[in-house]
Amino acid sequence: MRVPKVGVIGAGQLARMMIGPATDLGVDINVFAASSDDSAALISSFMVGDYKNIEDLMAFAKDCDVVTFEHELVPQSVIKDMESLGVRVYPTGNSFIYSQDKLAMREKIAQLGLLNPKYERYEGGSTNLAFPLIAKVPQGGYDGRGVWVIANQAQLSELPQPLLLEEKLNFTREIAVMVARSPSGETKAWSPTLTEQCDGICKVTVTPVPELPDDLIAEANRIAITIADGIGLVGVMAVELFHMGDHLIVNELALRPHNSGHWTIEGAITSQFEQHLRAVLDLPLGDTKRIADWAVMGNILGGKHPEIFTQYEELMARNPRLKLHHYRKEIKKGRKIGHVLLLGWDCDFHELVDEVEFAQDYLSGGSHE
Amino acid sequence: MRVPKVGVIGAGQLARMMIGPATDLGVDINVFAASSDDSAALISSFMVGDYKNIEDLMAFAKDCDVVTFEHELVPQSVIKDMESLGVRVYPTGNSFIYSQDKLAMREKIAQLGLLNPKYERYEGGSTNLAFPLIAKVPQGGYDGRGVWVIANQAQLSELPQPLLLEEKLNFTREIAVMVARSPSGETKAWSPTLTEQCDGICKVTVTPVPELPDDLIAEANRIAITIADGIGLVGVMAVELFHMGDHLIVNELALRPHNSGHWTIEGAITSQFEQHLRAVLDLPLGDTKRIADWAVMGNILGGKHPEIFTQYEELMARNPRLKLHHYRKEIKKGRKIGHVLLLGWDCDFHELVDEVEFAQDYLSGGSHE
Repeated sequence: MRVPKVGVIGAGQLARMMIGPATDLGVDINVFAASSDDSAALISSFMVGDYKNIEDLMAFAKDCDVVTFEHELVPQSVIKDMESLGVRVYPTGNSFIYSQDKLAMREKIAQLGLLNPKYERYEGGSTNLAFPLIAKVPQGGYDGRGVWVIANQAQLSELPQPLLLEEKLNFTREIAVMVARSPSGETKAWSPTLTEQCDGICKVTVTPVPELPDDLIAEANRIAITIADGIGLVGVMAVELFHMGDHLIVNELALRPHNSGHWTIEGAITSQFEQHLRAVLDLPLGDTKRIADWAVMGNILGGKHPEIFTQYEELMARNPRLKLHHYRKEIKKGRKIGHVLLLGWDCDFHELVDEVEFAQDYLSGGSHE
Repeated sequence: MRVPKVGVIGAGQLARMMIGPATDLGVDINVFAASSDDSAALISSFMVGDYKNIEDLMAFAKDCDVVTFEHELVPQSVIKDMESLGVRVYPTGNSFIYSQDKLAMREKIAQLGLLNPKYERYEGGSTNLAFPLIAKVPQGGYDGRGVWVIANQAQLSELPQPLLLEEKLNFTREIAVMVARSPSGETKAWSPTLTEQCDGICKVTVTPVPELPDDLIAEANRIAITIADGIGLVGVMAVELFHMGDHLIVNELALRPHNSGHWTIEGAITSQFEQHLRAVLDLPLGDTKRIADWAVMGNILGGKHPEIFTQYEELMARNPRLKLHHYRKEIKKGRKIGHVLLLGWDCDFHELVDEVEFAQDYLSGGSHE
């Protein structure tokens, strides 16, 4: 029996959550892990290696039909080497750069005629932007790491260079749109999602975005598809946006399944994880229809409890609709170790958010401040 | 990190489909397989052994917190031996007998005050039932095997004995109800399902049952819960019923996830596979709410095509809502090798059935007669 094998570089929860849809489709998955106890390696065939080492990656890729990513950490030069050695890599290195280099991303967004915050590349000296401003390491930061709010020139001078500096927008809220594109150019987006951040980490998402006018829903989708087409995306991508009045301004891109799309597992006909597999396998994309009035997702962060399974009984008894996702990662303070999801019909989404927040506190042990 | 391990005896598609929800919950699964290329063994930790051999089963059970089944083939005496050696087995042997012995099941149904067809145990001689009648091997038959329509005494005399003989009902249609029960006695049923059989094998299910009056929906649920409580079920069970006018008559029981519950994977808040795990782990049961107006499932039977993956592209392009389930089983004529599912809202269910039947023919290669 000939079925394709997808190689996933990275073995965290995003790779883990690809395995369910791969099983349904009958597709083989192989994950490239840092350790045999990585979240996805626990339930998949895997190889342990160094994602900066081309020999390791080529050994991994040799029996995969296509190789994809669950993180942005493989150096561009290494991706290019894989491609030149004949490996089919999706997203391609040429597009993946916009997930890896925030300066390159800003320039691409401007070139596509979409809205950026004011920004500049900073390598010392004075800046044209007003303080306070946002300083970002162009490559390698995530979940609030490598991002700073800078109050004055003295603080700015203490940071490593080069930096991407951005104006500190007084935005209303942050939203995200997941979009998929296949090699043939087919694109599909899901309903935009409200993402509520705390300390740079997404805590809760609400889908659809409450009270987002139809023209802004359409605009969010247009932006996502414009970027997907403009960079030649293959796979799924999260487009994070600032909502400011009538405008949507691009915040960040992630060319992979993303936390803001976890709601699609139960909340849409086709999940971001299945869609990513369809796209990198050059199959037609699945329907992205939302199947509930509301889908509220909450990340579980490592807290006081040494385990989360022991809290299931109380929580399941309290809410039989709660969907639990346990990443099987070692619990560290503030680390994403799971998520929960609630679907709702004919209800106030605030009730769902309250339930999700209760579950977050109950599972983690409350204080992860 | 301490998480429970569930041992599943059997490694076909039913065990395979438990692995997704086990991954979500963070529960470990170990399957007891006949061969390393069994459907579930391909994606799970497994042990190969003989399910009639108590030493093999005890070696398998020793690091499992609970052992359950995906088929009815483990002899009662072996289940009882496991239990007496201290293994937690759910469903218990005392209840599982009703999934294994159709004569014992008929007697239990009568004792619970529910409707049976006229039946008798046959060990030769004449019968009190009218011809044509149904003859069944009490133990070991499934998917039409071990079941015969018998026209006369001469045919009856040729069959092995003992037999369960049943009157041949002139029923309107066949329906099934999935129900779950936990050790604490909590029970939950899903919407009743119409099952369309061909040659003794289920071809298509439609949920909910079209035009089933509310009192019969309530009656179907009452029957399922009466049986679950009456036999001390732990896990999920399919209750297959004949619908005759105003009556529902018990056809068969299966104390495990069942083909007639596959629609719950996408079609309900909690799938039969997740619910089975919750029940055998003594966790509160999940909500069984249906999330679409219609859920239509179609089995894919082995046909002319040597593989089904190669047919995905056309089918996905035709219908982006189609959900594909590939069991990765060797293709044999008439064997269940996968299933497809369509959810529908505000539509005529016949349109969904047409689409599902197209997909069945297209995937298998048309002629599996």
